[in-house]
Amino acid sequence: MGLAERILQGDIRAAARLMRDVDDGFASASEELKKLYPHTGKAYLVGITGPPGAGKSTLVDQITAAYRKLGKRVGIVAVDPTSPFTGGAILGDRIRMNRHADDEGVFIRSLATRGCLGGISRSTGDVVNVMDAMGMDVIIIETVGVGQDEIDIVRMAHTTTVVMVPGLGDDIQAIKAGILEIADVFVVNKADRDGADRTVRELSAMLEMGERRNGDWLPKVMRTEASRGVGIEELVAEYENHRNYLFSSGAIERFTNEKNSAILSEMLKERLFRKVYDRILADGTYGEIVSGMATRSVDPYSAVDSIIAGHLFSIPEVSE
Amino acid sequence: MGLAERILQGDIRAAARLMRDVDDGFASASEELKKLYPHTGKAYLVGITGPPGAGKSTLVDQITAAYRKLGKRVGIVAVDPTSPFTGGAILGDRIRMNRHADDEGVFIRSLATRGCLGGISRSTGDVVNVMDAMGMDVIIIETVGVGQDEIDIVRMAHTTTVVMVPGLGDDIQAIKAGILEIADVFVVNKADRDGADRTVRELSAMLEMGERRNGDWLPKVMRTEASRGVGIEELVAEYENHRNYLFSSGAIERFTNEKNSAILSEMLKERLFRKVYDRILADGTYGEIVSGMATRSVDPYSAVDSIIAGHLFSIPEVSE
Repeated sequence: MGLAERILQGDIRAAARLMRDVDDGFASASEELKKLYPHTGKAYLVGITGPPGAGKSTLVDQITAAYRKLGKRVGIVAVDPTSPFTGGAILGDRIRMNRHADDEGVFIRSLATRGCLGGISRSTGDVVNVMDAMGMDVIIIETVGVGQDEIDIVRMAHTTTVVMVPGLGDDIQAIKAGILEIADVFVVNKADRDGADRTVRELSAMLEMGERRNGDWLPKVMRTEASRGVGIEELVAEYENHRNYLFSSGAIERFTNEKNSAILSEMLKERLFRKVYDRILADGTYGEIVSGMATRSVDPYSAVDSIIAGHLFSIPEVSE
Repeated sequence: MGLAERILQGDIRAAARLMRDVDDGFASASEELKKLYPHTGKAYLVGITGPPGAGKSTLVDQITAAYRKLGKRVGIVAVDPTSPFTGGAILGDRIRMNRHADDEGVFIRSLATRGCLGGISRSTGDVVNVMDAMGMDVIIIETVGVGQDEIDIVRMAHTTTVVMVPGLGDDIQAIKAGILEIADVFVVNKADRDGADRTVRELSAMLEMGERRNGDWLPKVMRTEASRGVGIEELVAEYENHRNYLFSSGAIERFTNEKNSAILSEMLKERLFRKVYDRILADGTYGEIVSGMATRSVDPYSAVDSIIAGHLFSIPEVSE
């Protein structure tokens, strides 16, 4: 029996194996993913992002426990694009301490950036598809940090949570402004700390002024103390509210199309590049161009024009 | 006279115009960049990154003043990939307050992320080339934040500076670990604050344990108080030390090749994708695939295989 068939029967080892094959770039992995794809699209995806120190891991742990109490199976994808050099080892250590490690209803996978040829959002999508196909009801995508990569990743989720904490200082304003529009739910964690009221007030004020990306959904600002489990049930209930909104308003259709378009574009970009790159690396063209750039005898703009002319079918151009 | 010719004569307006054309994706911009490329490669590139609140803008301001005293012309590229929604407006405001705004020997350009088709490191490279061709002696590349995008960007610089401040808390350890290997110079800014000694000590200890990416160069930890101009001359002197090291040790060759390879790959990836994307968007294929993904009747892995088969010359594959 192939990996895909075993995964569809809920075989956790087969799922872990396929995820490794995906990481290692095995051609066979792509064939298995093709077989799984028709069985995906059932899981509900929750995204969680926020600055380092906001307590996201603890929050994910508590949300997982709450969903487990409701009888849901939970997948967790922890993405760490900020550690290209440590390979996400720090995140890995944190994950291993997770109290759900022995629960068969919980499947945890951490992902780190894999350099310029990798594409972390592509990998995240593949992992989500595997978890979805194996029957996880809820998949939580947690990221470290709040850069563009993280935003691309959490936007894959049906419901995006932005976690803040009181008292991170004035510069947090810049971060807030950047991520305001992506949040469906705001969480002020460590809500027992000084300044929590102020943070909640400021966020609420900003939200009322801001433009909505998701039609007329107005994000709420929830308070949690993840370390003591306070506010978690309310948060999970709010996820349910947002899910109901998405489906009853019809917003889910636009969301799905935008998401699938982003996935397709990313996949096409990487695979096209990889094919052409492998060819011109093998025949020496790539090395010649790079050497020519060092002496400025070759300019990369013209070189890329020639590569494209030499590898793409020439068809009449659409007017540019 | 064309834009490129005017830029080579130092025409600042022509440079600003070409940068806008690049942003807007005009085909003519690419032709001008081709003409400028042979005249690039003379400027010295300094990269500056670090967490929000570390005082990077003030530091850049002071470094610029120091280089101006030495008679150098300075280009500044301020990159803000963390604000995809605000379009870098916050950064723009900060830049406009810069006291060098009226100095003809200083050219400032800020860049924000331009969505999934943009490629911020590609844009940064183009802007650096324009500044280089117009005769800037030093080009400072400043980024906000410390994610993967920022790391890709600052690695374009000959000398990469990572700026820290005392007392950002324990979670900063995770950030430090991720960026330790990219720094050629560390700066502990706001060095008059409590905890500065400890931060310097900890960084120095981590540096002595860490692996070196640049041969046997051991990064120093410098102290500055950018707001009062303290430690800036010493920092600029350390940049000169690193530059001398790069050229006298021969490390510059590996650096140049790695950098040019990254630039070429990024450019090829985007241009290839753009060509194929424009075609399949125009003929309706793209929309059909996205619709098919919604009902799971089309899987994107197979769809991408067919697109590639339909647009790339079929040549014998190198064994995978």
